[in-house]
Amino acid sequence: MNKPVKKQQQQGKKPRTAITPTREEDFAEWYQQVVKATDMAETSPTRGCMIIKPYGWAIWEKCQEIFDKWLKDYGVQNASFPLLIPMSFFSREAEHVEGFAKECAVVTHHRLESDGKGGLQPAESAKLEEPYVVRPTSETIIGDAMSRWVQSYRDLPLQLNQWAQVLRWEMRTRLFLRTAEFFWHEGHNAFEDHEGADKDCRHVMGLYEKFFTEHLAFDGYVGIKTPDETFPGANTTYAFEAMMQDGKALQAATTHDLGTTFAKTFNITYQGRDEKEHLCHTTSWAFSTRVIGGLIMMHADDDGMIMPPRIAPQQIIILPVVKDDNAQSVEKFCATIAADLKAKGFRVKLDNRDMRTPDKMWDAVKKGIPIRVEVGGREMEVGELTYVRRDIGRDSKTTLKVADFIDKTESILDDIHDTMLARTRQFRDENTHDVDTLDEVEAFFKAEKLGFTRVPVAILDDPNLEAVMSKYSLSTRNMPLSDNGEKVLISKAY
Amino acid sequence: MNKPVKKQQQQGKKPRTAITPTREEDFAEWYQQVVKATDMAETSPTRGCMIIKPYGWAIWEKCQEIFDKWLKDYGVQNASFPLLIPMSFFSREAEHVEGFAKECAVVTHHRLESDGKGGLQPAESAKLEEPYVVRPTSETIIGDAMSRWVQSYRDLPLQLNQWAQVLRWEMRTRLFLRTAEFFWHEGHNAFEDHEGADKDCRHVMGLYEKFFTEHLAFDGYVGIKTPDETFPGANTTYAFEAMMQDGKALQAATTHDLGTTFAKTFNITYQGRDEKEHLCHTTSWAFSTRVIGGLIMMHADDDGMIMPPRIAPQQIIILPVVKDDNAQSVEKFCATIAADLKAKGFRVKLDNRDMRTPDKMWDAVKKGIPIRVEVGGREMEVGELTYVRRDIGRDSKTTLKVADFIDKTESILDDIHDTMLARTRQFRDENTHDVDTLDEVEAFFKAEKLGFTRVPVAILDDPNLEAVMSKYSLSTRNMPLSDNGEKVLISKAY
Repeated sequence: MNKPVKKQQQQGKKPRTAITPTREEDFAEWYQQVVKATDMAETSPTRGCMIIKPYGWAIWEKCQEIFDKWLKDYGVQNASFPLLIPMSFFSREAEHVEGFAKECAVVTHHRLESDGKGGLQPAESAKLEEPYVVRPTSETIIGDAMSRWVQSYRDLPLQLNQWAQVLRWEMRTRLFLRTAEFFWHEGHNAFEDHEGADKDCRHVMGLYEKFFTEHLAFDGYVGIKTPDETFPGANTTYAFEAMMQDGKALQAATTHDLGTTFAKTFNITYQGRDEKEHLCHTTSWAFSTRVIGGLIMMHADDDGMIMPPRIAPQQIIILPVVKDDNAQSVEKFCATIAADLKAKGFRVKLDNRDMRTPDKMWDAVKKGIPIRVEVGGREMEVGELTYVRRDIGRDSKTTLKVADFIDKTESILDDIHDTMLARTRQFRDENTHDVDTLDEVEAFFKAEKLGFTRVPVAILDDPNLEAVMSKYSLSTRNMPLSDNGEKVLISKAY
Repeated sequence: MNKPVKKQQQQGKKPRTAITPTREEDFAEWYQQVVKATDMAETSPTRGCMIIKPYGWAIWEKCQEIFDKWLKDYGVQNASFPLLIPMSFFSREAEHVEGFAKECAVVTHHRLESDGKGGLQPAESAKLEEPYVVRPTSETIIGDAMSRWVQSYRDLPLQLNQWAQVLRWEMRTRLFLRTAEFFWHEGHNAFEDHEGADKDCRHVMGLYEKFFTEHLAFDGYVGIKTPDETFPGANTTYAFEAMMQDGKALQAATTHDLGTTFAKTFNITYQGRDEKEHLCHTTSWAFSTRVIGGLIMMHADDDGMIMPPRIAPQQIIILPVVKDDNAQSVEKFCATIAADLKAKGFRVKLDNRDMRTPDKMWDAVKKGIPIRVEVGGREMEVGELTYVRRDIGRDSKTTLKVADFIDKTESILDDIHDTMLARTRQFRDENTHDVDTLDEVEAFFKAEKLGFTRVPVAILDDPNLEAVMSKYSLSTRNMPLSDNGEKVLISKAY
């Protein structure tokens, strides 16, 4: 299936892995088990909604911290728009509703009352004249605000963003990948003309690509969506499509050039330099907590997560390996190392929980902490430590003077990042198959080969395309910019 | 009414102010006009919910950035719990519901459908078996999670926090002060015993006090709520009560020692060191976007906001004062100053909008930017600039060499902070009136005097207390720790 798994197969024996089942045995279940083993999230009593636990939420906070700064440098301002949107706003944007807004949480009452049987019920006397919808996305309510805020070309560009949760009633959910409630940032922007809007979409897609490669250590294909897959109401949708270890695509981020569609619906106009009224060109763009699911399916192995160092909540974990007679001194020595690393800006954790060392070690492995440091009494005596890289495993075991390790920490983390990125790039390239015809596409997926097919765009006019895609649960992913829009990627997808 | 207004009265002439009406003329309307003039927030098409605009949201982001770090240093971990809470959770905690959970947004359907008249309606076929409530607070759903997460004393303390919005259906709303949706952080924590819980409540209240005084430049009274005002289900509620310029109290933050109430309801138990099952002692604590309303009512004057420098979105604004023949060179000179200040970590904005200089100046005054710098052609030629402090006004006008200003910026901002804090402390102290009897309390408020009365706690047993408080719309605020709980504050409140 994918490279590391194949290697294990060739050895002809069942490996002892920390995660059961393995990726090859059952990729979907393996994924759930990794989420569980890392303690990132769990299901909640609210249907389809997850609890994001501290280790998972810390990843999202790190994503926010980095990307938010880039958005501000670009000139975007954050704001906050209401969670509840009047139902009539969705009627106004019919195409929008067709897209996805029908399955949503509808607020119809504003009070609970006793049901007379010890429980509660929505109070009939508090039925709302107009229901509200928990936002599935905020185009409508932000468009309405923009129509008030934009008067003149001097007010443009208007570049807004909010970090928020949205809610879409999903029937079949999977932690991070598809949940009713999820978190994202949503940018909403207004420009004088098409040129401004298109430039914005390309610029922000460039930021996504930079963020995914430089911080999440994964690459993908940046391209334009085919008309069928374009966001409802948009002229053009740009998407970043990443390849998971099971060969399926994950759409990790999108930017939409909405043309004047939303400006017409919400009356977003400005007085131009020519003193005439014009419609704005608007854009929107987002990435979400889905990328955390993508991180797992991209990087994790049969022993659990491998966390990209630059967004890892903990970059280094220190395990004191103690005996009864040296516990205090070894822990003190470890605490000094931790403090020195912290002072240099690294995210480091000293694991001094009251647990067996092998259990701590496996916990660190499963959580994917990039560098694991072990210090025992003998090492303490000579001022040394031993470290293991999670991306390589035991082959990377190295003993160093503490001071040397601290000097090298940054370059080790950089090398882990580079190695992980190169690995995912190689996997993507090896599993992208150039074919020329629809028959070849069909043959590829019929043979249960995994990965993307890359086909000349003429295939989009093939009358049998829809039937083949439907038969094998395929979809067009995008037309990569790197192919000048002459090719289209087709694959299974999340 | 309050000091600055009185001074203006004594001068016997109506001042020309940037905000109309003045605080004295109509405090409530003055408040709304300051929010509008600063462009912090506006009402939205969603009943009772506001749009927090970039200048307002930036204040909240700054509060989050600072306080979140302190919480993490204390050992708290952030997580995220579902927005929607099953209705039955509220039945389980009856006392909780009595408190405030009845007025809330109730989700009853999960799909919209066409109403056949071009509009939409909740689909009857998608009526939920059990409604959900948009969280008014998360005690219940977090308590439910804690019951799974806590098994042993080794899992304690469990210190969780989330930055989130909550929703309470409010009939009479005012921007920031009382809105249906508002933002807060909510900490939820479990301890082995009462001592741990109480220590937590006091420690976090100490963090609030430090945050309000050191960053928001306002002081208040830290104390314990009287039984009537204690959070439903809590043993003890600690509150920070600040005095606004109209003499009313604003409860700016609370910490609650919930004893074992929630642990009983949600079965949060642990196996102790004695190998027996015990109930946890839990706490919760919060402050919210209400404090932004408090900042305005505490610091603003009749010319608009005065922003505390340490959370000001912009600490310094630079206005180029240009003529036709020097516009480019003056703006370039100003840009260099801005870059130098930014490099030193200050939040600085160069206002090179295409507007008249007096309009820019008044905009900066109304927004309350702590330091306004003006640079014209003559100053550029000699390498100087002129600055004005917003907290003092034109009397602080000073001309300095650019390099000297940059050296002094930090100390000027510190002095603005200290001056603002001292001013609010003086106002609080001057308007806190020690009285001994209920008759004196009544006489005070009958005479329409403004501020707090501070009375021996024996008054709480007075059978007429309730009648007097009701007649003058008063409430007990807290029993200040600084009085060893021997006094209670009584006042009007927001």
